Amino acid sequence: MKYSKNPLTGKDYILPSSLCDSVSIDNFINNNNGKPIVVVQGLGFVGAVMSLVCANAINGDYAVIGVDLPSEESYWKIASINDGIFPVVSSDKKVDMFFQNAKNKENFMATFDNYAYSKADFIIVDINLDVQKKSTEMHDLIDYDVDISGFKNAIRAIGANCKEDVLILIETTVPPGTTAIANKIIKKELKKRDLDTTKFNIGHSYERVMPGPNYIDSIQNFYRVYSGVNEESADQIEKFLKTIISTEKYPLTRLQNTNSTEVSKVLENSYRAMNIAFIVEWSRFAEEAGIDLYEIIDAIRMRPTHKNIMLPGIGVGGYCLTKDPLLASWAKQNLINSMNPLQMSESAVKINDKMPEFAFNFLESFFENGIENLNVCLLGVSYLSDVGDTRYTPVELLYKCLNNAGCKMELHDPYVSFWEELNIPVNNDISILDKDYDILIFSTGHTVYKSNSALIKAIMKKDKVFILDTIGILSADEILELSSKHTVKVIGRGDI
Amino acid sequence: MKYSKNPLTGKDYILPSSLCDSVSIDNFINNNNGKPIVVVQGLGFVGAVMSLVCANAINGDYAVIGVDLPSEESYWKIASINDGIFPVVSSDKKVDMFFQNAKNKENFMATFDNYAYSKADFIIVDINLDVQKKSTEMHDLIDYDVDISGFKNAIRAIGANCKEDVLILIETTVPPGTTAIANKIIKKELKKRDLDTTKFNIGHSYERVMPGPNYIDSIQNFYRVYSGVNEESADQIEKFLKTIISTEKYPLTRLQNTNSTEVSKVLENSYRAMNIAFIVEWSRFAEEAGIDLYEIIDAIRMRPTHKNIMLPGIGVGGYCLTKDPLLASWAKQNLINSMNPLQMSESAVKINDKMPEFAFNFLESFFENGIENLNVCLLGVSYLSDVGDTRYTPVELLYKCLNNAGCKMELHDPYVSFWEELNIPVNNDISILDKDYDILIFSTGHTVYKSNSALIKAIMKKDKVFILDTIGILSADEILELSSKHTVKVIGRGDI
Repeated sequence: MKYSKNPLTGKDYILPSSLCDSVSIDNFINNNNGKPIVVVQGLGFVGAVMSLVCANAINGDYAVIGVDLPSEESYWKIASINDGIFPVVSSDKKVDMFFQNAKNKENFMATFDNYAYSKADFIIVDINLDVQKKSTEMHDLIDYDVDISGFKNAIRAIGANCKEDVLILIETTVPPGTTAIANKIIKKELKKRDLDTTKFNIGHSYERVMPGPNYIDSIQNFYRVYSGVNEESADQIEKFLKTIISTEKYPLTRLQNTNSTEVSKVLENSYRAMNIAFIVEWSRFAEEAGIDLYEIIDAIRMRPTHKNIMLPGIGVGGYCLTKDPLLASWAKQNLINSMNPLQMSESAVKINDKMPEFAFNFLESFFENGIENLNVCLLGVSYLSDVGDTRYTPVELLYKCLNNAGCKMELHDPYVSFWEELNIPVNNDISILDKDYDILIFSTGHTVYKSNSALIKAIMKKDKVFILDTIGILSADEILELSSKHTVKVIGRGDI
Repeated sequence: MKYSKNPLTGKDYILPSSLCDSVSIDNFINNNNGKPIVVVQGLGFVGAVMSLVCANAINGDYAVIGVDLPSEESYWKIASINDGIFPVVSSDKKVDMFFQNAKNKENFMATFDNYAYSKADFIIVDINLDVQKKSTEMHDLIDYDVDISGFKNAIRAIGANCKEDVLILIETTVPPGTTAIANKIIKKELKKRDLDTTKFNIGHSYERVMPGPNYIDSIQNFYRVYSGVNEESADQIEKFLKTIISTEKYPLTRLQNTNSTEVSKVLENSYRAMNIAFIVEWSRFAEEAGIDLYEIIDAIRMRPTHKNIMLPGIGVGGYCLTKDPLLASWAKQNLINSMNPLQMSESAVKINDKMPEFAFNFLESFFENGIENLNVCLLGVSYLSDVGDTRYTPVELLYKCLNNAGCKMELHDPYVSFWEELNIPVNNDISILDKDYDILIFSTGHTVYKSNSALIKAIMKKDKVFILDTIGILSADEILELSSKHTVKVIGRGDI
């Protein structure tokens, strides 16, 4: 018997022996008598929360069915939702509130059965589309590839089951050109079933989800860009989005075609990734030149034309910024038939992937006799402050560098109890700091580490520690206080 | 006899036969009885206008002496100022107003005699410091170098003449580390003359001058960053800046050392150059994918975190953005002794330098039979809208590409009558459009080309023309109207 474990609760769920879940689906629909049905394909960091936003629609009343795979990796999400446990831990209280509301209204269920698509009035596609990076052990990007066959199969599953007048909204970040391909697949599948191929609508509208304290608002109360494969599709998507998003305050933007919204999404993430990579290089410069990049960037940000300049840090992580520039460059060369890659965007990924190693090298440079056998405590393992998401976290490479160098590692994160990618437990209790460490590293900017006088007091009680702040979380006053006893170094700050 | 020609008026000035101008200087100082004396070294696009701002100080009353070289290239600036003609043409009316005020007050003169430094209470350094690019004919950057010996000589000229308690403010964009070198030079020169080497003050405060309609305000009413080689120097510079800048509205920012302000300047220009290069690449993508990058960027800019994303264009020009990223990378490797260049910044310059060639290729791709012998009219040759500055203008490479391809060229620019770098005249009169052209290119975004219904009407009267908008100056309505008769293409927009 195979199980799927909820990494948040530790609970094991037995994988279903049958692929049929139609009875539950029919019952759910009967109970939600007459409500339009929204099916969300994919229950990850976007799909799970998108489901909540639809189940709590501001201008509509939907019955929402989340669909994911009955696999060891994914089934626990389905089972947990139906078990009353939301599959994402978040610092945003609205997440719990929205899930509780949906439980009370009984208008949200999850399933693995594609039968759900046959009942859907609206289908929202929120599945992954990955880039296969070929990197060295030390994250030197050598090559990469994109395989859209999995995405095509998921669209085929919709086409093989959906009603002929369904509205399909693709939210996945896809290589530009992909929604046009999905349109063809749906047509072909409908034709196979002798259905009318002129009635369905399909388009693309990308999410700008930010897991963290404003998780729900990053969908419900934020600007949206959308497009359809034709005007009718665009009109229908507009109508639907207006039922779930506060579009009066955050007006929608319609673009001319689906290529445009697809490019728009990868462009905005590439912009961000590139601006981070840019500052990675200048951080090295600052460390070498004995200057404080933080005060310089504060000075530069006074110019409205330079407000978006980034601060130093440990690099980028998460699902999007680490791959979207490559997704774009791949599409340019493979779907649009351009000869040239997006050189600046590819370089950005290469530089960002190396950033944690720079942090490690910076740290190591202060230890003449090496750092082997030293006790190291990492504060934060997730890729973003106040988020329990370790996917592609830059802390992973930092951890590996330290581990390879022979350090003894302790980990703390208030939002992560088990680091899936590395298969190691993480301490949630800040009292971990009572142990003895030679090196203490601020590796994620969680609020709990910020302006925390108890934390500073605890560190001041310890014997001399080497403190590395990789994300500029310590204030000038805190650095001053800690420096009276310990050694404090900050990424992007030279000795001044 | 040698002459120096004012390219704006065509007037020739005979180069001075003696290097002594002390009588004029002494007379000027006598007439400005007791006023503190500001000497500005360098009368280029920054120094000339900085002189005006000092002569019109908001919280002070200075006698200002501008110093430049008695060379064929530069002497005309000195002679013109003393002749009552300002050496820069600007769309900013305040420039004329400030110059007129200074003439009335008789508190601004220009000279070539280093004797001026001996009288100075304040010396502002606004000379050039260039990067020597090694590029192919088609602007492929192969290598570059920086020679700071000219800058050092200029500082030496100050040190050999100045009072022991002078305040020296370096405004030139210099490789980080240079003000510290200047400090040593001044000390050495004072010592040679047996003067006290502890009394002078020196620091760095970079300008953010934007030639154009807000030329004066870009100095007088804008944020400033400054530093001194020690606290006393920083204090004195702060005191001086407060007399010429509206610091209540635009507070000053003091950084910890001169390396910091030097890095800050090249960092902010590199940020800009890199973000332009980034969009250069995406413009190609947009043209190939049949999408409109303008509407996409409008959609993305709704996010506050993405407000600074740039629009498509013909690339960067001007004195700063084309070289500052290299200046920074050179300093990192040569003055700070770092091993690694600033890769993202260097790539940015490489890509931007090629941009006009992309525009040319884009244009040529629409002419199956080539463009040889076609008549081409370029609207705008300067590097920036509403500015008469052709230094490193991207239009230069576009012109060369077209010229090499055998096109017959006509040029228009309201602010440039003679294109010094190419040694060719430029038409100021828009009636040039009455001639017959096969190709009309909007190459600079001058206001006079924008929403100009007479201009559109004139173009509509002509036989079929191919119109290329390289800077997105045409509105959607204008494109629609022009397209009814002509072919219109826009950089960063594919066929949609």
